[in-house]
Amino acid sequence: MATRDEEALKLHERHRGKLSVVSRVPLKDARDLAMAYTPGVAAPCLRIAADPEEAYRYTFKGRMVAVVTDGTAVLGLGNIGGLAGLPVMEGKCALLKKFGGIDAFPICLATQKPEEIIDTVVRVAPSFGAIMLEDIAAPQCVFIERELKQRLNIPVFHDDQHGTAIVVSAAILNVCRHLRKDLSSLHICVSGTGAAGSSICRMLRRLGVGEIRAFNKQGIVSRRKYAEYDFLIRELLDQGVITSFEDYREDTLRELIRGSDVFIGVSAPDLVDAPMIRSMAKDPVVFAMANPRPEILPEIALAAGARIVGTGRSDFPNQINNVLIFPGLFRGALKSRAKQISEEMKLASARGLAALVADDELADDYILPRAFDRRVAKAVADAVIRQAKIEQSKE
Amino acid sequence: MATRDEEALKLHERHRGKLSVVSRVPLKDARDLAMAYTPGVAAPCLRIAADPEEAYRYTFKGRMVAVVTDGTAVLGLGNIGGLAGLPVMEGKCALLKKFGGIDAFPICLATQKPEEIIDTVVRVAPSFGAIMLEDIAAPQCVFIERELKQRLNIPVFHDDQHGTAIVVSAAILNVCRHLRKDLSSLHICVSGTGAAGSSICRMLRRLGVGEIRAFNKQGIVSRRKYAEYDFLIRELLDQGVITSFEDYREDTLRELIRGSDVFIGVSAPDLVDAPMIRSMAKDPVVFAMANPRPEILPEIALAAGARIVGTGRSDFPNQINNVLIFPGLFRGALKSRAKQISEEMKLASARGLAALVADDELADDYILPRAFDRRVAKAVADAVIRQAKIEQSKE
Repeated sequence: MATRDEEALKLHERHRGKLSVVSRVPLKDARDLAMAYTPGVAAPCLRIAADPEEAYRYTFKGRMVAVVTDGTAVLGLGNIGGLAGLPVMEGKCALLKKFGGIDAFPICLATQKPEEIIDTVVRVAPSFGAIMLEDIAAPQCVFIERELKQRLNIPVFHDDQHGTAIVVSAAILNVCRHLRKDLSSLHICVSGTGAAGSSICRMLRRLGVGEIRAFNKQGIVSRRKYAEYDFLIRELLDQGVITSFEDYREDTLRELIRGSDVFIGVSAPDLVDAPMIRSMAKDPVVFAMANPRPEILPEIALAAGARIVGTGRSDFPNQINNVLIFPGLFRGALKSRAKQISEEMKLASARGLAALVADDELADDYILPRAFDRRVAKAVADAVIRQAKIEQSKE
Repeated sequence: MATRDEEALKLHERHRGKLSVVSRVPLKDARDLAMAYTPGVAAPCLRIAADPEEAYRYTFKGRMVAVVTDGTAVLGLGNIGGLAGLPVMEGKCALLKKFGGIDAFPICLATQKPEEIIDTVVRVAPSFGAIMLEDIAAPQCVFIERELKQRLNIPVFHDDQHGTAIVVSAAILNVCRHLRKDLSSLHICVSGTGAAGSSICRMLRRLGVGEIRAFNKQGIVSRRKYAEYDFLIRELLDQGVITSFEDYREDTLRELIRGSDVFIGVSAPDLVDAPMIRSMAKDPVVFAMANPRPEILPEIALAAGARIVGTGRSDFPNQINNVLIFPGLFRGALKSRAKQISEEMKLASARGLAALVADDELADDYILPRAFDRRVAKAVADAVIRQAKIEQSKE
């Protein structure tokens, strides 16, 4: 076992997990008790009973996010179940606090049935101001998020889908700015059409990317295989999000990547080799985000001629990590009391994140701000709040 | 509006509720992030996936209580719904932290259907080491708690039922010690057979109290009315917990209370007057716990000849409040990793609490330790842990 793993285990054991719940109010004597608890507590209860919106004034609701998982797709570990996902969810909550300054609590589910997940989240929602879905496998994650958005009037956001997509979108915006390329002329090859891949394709299309081809476990995404696909891939084809690619000779990623400007991997380790990089267009851009081992290691990609390489990891340059988005996004959504996270808010937060790197700072190894850049969460939150105000003024 | 209510509203508004979720681990730099979050966090996840018991080692599960309500019986306010109950639940969690040194999080439900409540709690249970049910109306609270105890292998405890019953039992134990009375010769009249009342009757019977008669909204509890009763009252009669009283002339509390040694009220304000106190046996004991206004005010009861008077309130002597029990009880249950709270643990915690008042300290106005007595939670927890060890050694 790696030393890192041993250290991580020790850290988790020493603290018995990572989160504590603490009181913000004094409880020193009977008088404090009479204010925070009975009989004083009856007053806020009655206010909320008369008007549920008052919960945002008198309780933690307006600053509390539920981080919900069924454990079907935890990190790159696969379906390990809700309980085994708890260390990740505690971590996400800690990050929401550290970077977003908001509170969050992990809800690890004992069910993996979409309908039961939906019912359960709806029933526990009163305590929360927003719902962050996490590490739920595709395609059911898409169905679950859509249903919850319908049934709840608080923001619901599946981080693995849209968090990644927003950071990738910000990176692509900055790649175009840096390399003076046009979004509409960009040809992108995406490996992986699960939670992250499908949302990445959608956002890039909405940004105006010209050509988006995709590869998944069934090979090159193509209308020829329509009958084999689940609802998610069918939608992406039907709605023209993914360009169907039909005239291939070999049904391989090697075939699909040829000639593309950008490779985006949200799939599996080591799918890409040096000759594939060399087959791309001039100034190849490679975002290899399989975790923890990317589709191609940065040193191999760079040696093969890649101009810009990003991964999900903090130990390489150009880290493309959700943590750049979700804390600020939820902060902004809660602060603006948005009823949901709209597509426009996602685009706004991508633009807000991208804009933090000035023209003269942009470099092949500095496409995005770093995770510990203190400006990030505020910039993302401000972008979300501005967009929320626009939408609220139209209501 | 009373000044107290205004102050309580201000306190709640200033802090936007009462609880915060905080990180116990440092998150200063990329190295911290790699330990608490990806990639380091995969190690504890895999340990738990291999053995779910490891969640007690690597996550907050073993020190985290869910405080669950459907809002059907919040304080004395009635059915105000889960969301409006959130200030009370935040308060309970703050008390679990303050007195029990354990963490707790409020789950306020958007359903009031018993089957849905049960399913929901089962599905969110992985994140928690124990479940505290709170402010759920009778009789469904009894059904819900029973089902959850069957379906979960972590402690489930409905505070309104058993928390109150344990404190009352401790008080009765000390009354007998103080007044040199025998439990078996004690004649007790209970007003209210809901969540608290039914559990009080059960515990007192188990302690060996001789005569337990009861009164509720349907009048004197009697076999004559068997057909009118819900399952809860029928059980109490069938199991001989409540002594059926049949030869009454008037169907009134005034009739039932006559000649009793102890009156226990968990019902409604002002049901008892001075002549009723005078009709009791020698040295009347009156525990009038309707909240916030008791069945009879202490000064009236004392003037009418009551020897010992207790209420649920902190502004009178002999406060009979759940807060004396639930923090220590959950602390003990979590520390001993008990699979459930057994009847013997409840009795043990009543005895542990009662024993904190020494023979020569017992007085008419000092029957129980006070809420801020620092010894309380430890004494209760230790009693639970001792009993859990006995039970675990028999398994």
